[in-house]
Amino acid sequence: MGINSNRVEHFSDPSCPEATVTMPPPLELHRVCLPPHKTTLQKFRDRVSEIFFPDDPLHRFKNQTWIRKLVLGLQFFFPVFQWGPSYGLNLLRSDIISGLTIASLAIPQGISYAKLANLPPIIGLYSSFVPPLIYSVLGSSRHLGVGPVSIASLVMGTMLSETVSYSEQPILYLQLAFTATFFAGVFQASLGLLRLGFIIDFLSKATLVGFMAGAAIIVSLQQLKGLLGIVHFTSKMQIVPVLLSVFRQKNEWSWQTIVMGTSFLVFLLTARKISMRKPKLFWISAAAPLTSVILSTILVYLLRSKLHGVSTIGHLPKGLNPPSSNMLYFCGPFLGVAIKTGLITGILSLTEGIAVGRTFAALKNYQVDGNKEMMAIGLMNMAGSCSSCYVTTGSFSRSAVNYNAGAQTVVSNVIMAATVLVTLLFLMPLFSYTPSFILAAIIITAVIGLIDYQAAIRLWKVDKLDFVACLCSFLGVLFISVPLGLAIAVGVSVFKILLHVTRPNTVVLGNIPGTQIYQNLSRYREASRVPSFLILAVESPIYFANSTYLQERILRWVREEEERVDSNKESAMKCIILDMTAVTAIDTSGIDTICELRKMLEKRSLQFVLANPVGTVMEKLHQSNVLQSFGLNGLYLTVGEAVADISSPWKANP
Amino acid sequence: MGINSNRVEHFSDPSCPEATVTMPPPLELHRVCLPPHKTTLQKFRDRVSEIFFPDDPLHRFKNQTWIRKLVLGLQFFFPVFQWGPSYGLNLLRSDIISGLTIASLAIPQGISYAKLANLPPIIGLYSSFVPPLIYSVLGSSRHLGVGPVSIASLVMGTMLSETVSYSEQPILYLQLAFTATFFAGVFQASLGLLRLGFIIDFLSKATLVGFMAGAAIIVSLQQLKGLLGIVHFTSKMQIVPVLLSVFRQKNEWSWQTIVMGTSFLVFLLTARKISMRKPKLFWISAAAPLTSVILSTILVYLLRSKLHGVSTIGHLPKGLNPPSSNMLYFCGPFLGVAIKTGLITGILSLTEGIAVGRTFAALKNYQVDGNKEMMAIGLMNMAGSCSSCYVTTGSFSRSAVNYNAGAQTVVSNVIMAATVLVTLLFLMPLFSYTPSFILAAIIITAVIGLIDYQAAIRLWKVDKLDFVACLCSFLGVLFISVPLGLAIAVGVSVFKILLHVTRPNTVVLGNIPGTQIYQNLSRYREASRVPSFLILAVESPIYFANSTYLQERILRWVREEEERVDSNKESAMKCIILDMTAVTAIDTSGIDTICELRKMLEKRSLQFVLANPVGTVMEKLHQSNVLQSFGLNGLYLTVGEAVADISSPWKANP
Repeated sequence: MGINSNRVEHFSDPSCPEATVTMPPPLELHRVCLPPHKTTLQKFRDRVSEIFFPDDPLHRFKNQTWIRKLVLGLQFFFPVFQWGPSYGLNLLRSDIISGLTIASLAIPQGISYAKLANLPPIIGLYSSFVPPLIYSVLGSSRHLGVGPVSIASLVMGTMLSETVSYSEQPILYLQLAFTATFFAGVFQASLGLLRLGFIIDFLSKATLVGFMAGAAIIVSLQQLKGLLGIVHFTSKMQIVPVLLSVFRQKNEWSWQTIVMGTSFLVFLLTARKISMRKPKLFWISAAAPLTSVILSTILVYLLRSKLHGVSTIGHLPKGLNPPSSNMLYFCGPFLGVAIKTGLITGILSLTEGIAVGRTFAALKNYQVDGNKEMMAIGLMNMAGSCSSCYVTTGSFSRSAVNYNAGAQTVVSNVIMAATVLVTLLFLMPLFSYTPSFILAAIIITAVIGLIDYQAAIRLWKVDKLDFVACLCSFLGVLFISVPLGLAIAVGVSVFKILLHVTRPNTVVLGNIPGTQIYQNLSRYREASRVPSFLILAVESPIYFANSTYLQERILRWVREEEERVDSNKESAMKCIILDMTAVTAIDTSGIDTICELRKMLEKRSLQFVLANPVGTVMEKLHQSNVLQSFGLNGLYLTVGEAVADISSPWKANP
Repeated sequence: MGINSNRVEHFSDPSCPEATVTMPPPLELHRVCLPPHKTTLQKFRDRVSEIFFPDDPLHRFKNQTWIRKLVLGLQFFFPVFQWGPSYGLNLLRSDIISGLTIASLAIPQGISYAKLANLPPIIGLYSSFVPPLIYSVLGSSRHLGVGPVSIASLVMGTMLSETVSYSEQPILYLQLAFTATFFAGVFQASLGLLRLGFIIDFLSKATLVGFMAGAAIIVSLQQLKGLLGIVHFTSKMQIVPVLLSVFRQKNEWSWQTIVMGTSFLVFLLTARKISMRKPKLFWISAAAPLTSVILSTILVYLLRSKLHGVSTIGHLPKGLNPPSSNMLYFCGPFLGVAIKTGLITGILSLTEGIAVGRTFAALKNYQVDGNKEMMAIGLMNMAGSCSSCYVTTGSFSRSAVNYNAGAQTVVSNVIMAATVLVTLLFLMPLFSYTPSFILAAIIITAVIGLIDYQAAIRLWKVDKLDFVACLCSFLGVLFISVPLGLAIAVGVSVFKILLHVTRPNTVVLGNIPGTQIYQNLSRYREASRVPSFLILAVESPIYFANSTYLQERILRWVREEEERVDSNKESAMKCIILDMTAVTAIDTSGIDTICELRKMLEKRSLQFVLANPVGTVMEKLHQSNVLQSFGLNGLYLTVGEAVADISSPWKANP
């Protein structure tokens, strides 16, 4: 297709009648180009660089001196060298305030979440000491509040309890918990190192909404054990056994526990509600847990002779984290359980930590490198497993309090760790009378916020398939199990992608008069059909998964058009144009389909042309020698040019 | 966006100078429409009808009388009523010739393939009698030659032999084979009934090329047992055990078997080569197997006193298929094996049968309804399992011979069945001296044709990922196992789809001067950037799987454009246009990404607009209230209109 001759367009202008000149309309056609030639190796290199380095992380290093590159490299791996030199007293002031605020949340949450994972409560405090320190050196998010989280604690407790009982074999259970944490850290750091971070993108937000809601309900129902004072409780995690366990053990309900527990729960929920209504009073919901712990401890201490059947935390050892690398369990029958638990808790905690980091980075308009964060969180967990900590990450509640309290850098985590240190060294005896029901109340208040029904409603309104994924995730967690519920939800999400590819949209295009614009006929009233032409657009790549369908569908469009033309006595169809703008890729099955369509339509004396193929599609058509069969006038740059070029001989010789 | 005022375009025409009039360029903008409103139920119904009834099978029934609808319905379910009334003597003549031709192929192939499945050879003959008769009533393909096939026989033999030994428990083995055939039939008929036929589209041609080649190599190597006369042979199906078994049992090699087997093998391969070079001599390769069977039987009979160690088929019982519904095994420890085997052989035989049917239908320009064929093949197998037949389908070699011999309708299958009937009733004693090596030679000749290295080379040239899928399938079958090799290949194909979605192409567009065409800058030399604009196109739906990547990538494009503009001292970038023509779908994660991009770019004082969103995307943007944040001038019908509208105030007030 070359340039035949220039075309000059004149539209009639009522205000300037002498400008209307009727000229013969010659055509200006543009040639459809192949993309610039690249060798297979170049293409492979480009593809790998797009997959693994989409943000071009080395762009800062260009055109720099050696020393600068060294400094940039050091800052890249240890972000502390980036903000460290510019740290000042005003930043320190903000960080101290926020650090103390999140510490008041960290202490009760740490104790509660460790109990959620069936671990000794002191482990929760250890996990709020070492991991934040590691993160402050390696992490890039300025507002992330690091420590144990409810979902990962729940999942760890569930999965380990299926095989090992924490009451009968506490040492083995602890070993497996640390080993699972180690493997979680290894997995997270590998994902970051190999730049495979996009894997966690498959846990879409819709999936997580359902998953978190289901897990929150399970956790809350399980806390009824602590709130009602039940001793014998199921260790299962599905909703039916838990509800049965609650209502069958009515004889074990302790009214004192119920009364006190419920009142503190109401207090905590009210504090949370106040903070949600008036964001400036965030410190109320931040201070409420620690206040409740202190008040309830005092209450139980004063009434200790009268209260029977109120279980307390018990004695907590003083002192720093003991090293635990000797407790890591690398050979034996339970290694598989530890690895599996580590994998699932690793993925979940990573997803939460990255999502929280990105949320607050977007609010304050800075970027967080996902892969770097994964390495930081992974190394944090690996180091934690060797110092008596279990799986930690950036928790949403803690980070929100951190952000609202005005944190400026990660030093707020350091301040929090220091406060926890002081607690560990000196304040441990104060917790011996802390009742279990307060921990249950704190957990319930914390997870209630994970039930985001507004997000679910929005999903229903906007995208029904996303809502189905959310629902599958929710029901799967409630009725089957946590890992399977997640797997089902990911499966539904992948199925959505495959369904869109397997049954793509095909539309008939019409011309908007007076323009070269071709749009969907059923959508734009002003678009009208072009006589003797059938213009189709396929809205998806043409793959093995949909090539048979597309062939049948296009033939059906042809048949329906023939019937319509017959019944309306219009001019017979002569040419079918396939608009390939949205056909973003093609494979060998797709190429075969296009060839077969051309042959079939040729047997019916119908011309079949392609318009606007994208670069890769054009290349594959060329390499498979299909272009030759289409010939010079089978490929056009736009639908408009195709219509003009093909219909011009008809107008010349009607 | 309404219509501001009409624009009149004048291009300078050197041949008509007085026609050049300079007018102020007002703009004609078109409004971006929402698609026509449909309720959720309507949308669901449309979607279901597209997924399950893409070819609108009931279109023939429209506007017909009751009696006509009844006749059409009868013809739909029993195609024999369609071609039956117009059957004539000339058609019968062609069908008799082709029927006899394929019978001469069916008899040796049936016996050989049954041995491949470790079944008594007579089962192969039974399977060439009843199934073709059933197919001739229900099937729609006019050229399909029905009977046992090599791949399904191989897979059945492999999978059943893993659990049950055919030499030690022959009755149980036979029971499981019939049960597997029954389940294969049930599965195939259900796929057809539920119109889930698109599932077999996931076995792409690339996958099957590798799979068939690997299976053919395994089958050929296994036939070395028969050709070399080895008695003790491995029952494993991977290439390494088979090769070891061949070369370790050198002491069992029988030179007589080797000499005779190799000569007949050479004869058969030569006949095949001749038929390939000169297609008119197809009858040579059709008659060669039966000729070899007759010649070798005569040879072994004449030399029977001198030939020791040449194993023969042995005694074959006379008579028709005995009923075998009592042999179906529905409860017991091996039911799982039977179901699994039935599933896999069902899928494989279905894929082959449908592919063969479609190939020949395309050659003769008629349509084969995939789902109807699946039901026919399924019912054929179900009936076969109750009459001592095992898994059958349309085989490629038999159908090719059928087509070349001039078959006109399925009556050729009836003629073939009649010939097999005569053989079963009268000619069985003739086969008692038929040696095993001839069956091995026949099998090797038959499967050699499945190794399509030219297709593999073409895959490498056109689509490297398709070649990788082919290679994975090939190596998986050779080294791991047949079902796993297939599963790996399907996994690679699905991975290809996910990779394209997870890392889509993004390109920068430029204007081809003098037109409203915007094309990829790196591909079209004549396209040039528009000053102050950055025009990006995303070539994929915006899903959860790629929204984070797209956000980073677009921000990287913005950063690189800013650097380029700075270094080239061009006019600063003010507006980013995202061409959404190829964004064929969006979900909630994608919508969130677009919102976040808009906010981030707004903070940098950059305008962000969308151009040409497809119907579903527009609808979701509307339902999620994102359109309101974009406002009236954030959405345009084409890139050209966006550029013209946004840059007009700049020209007015530079």
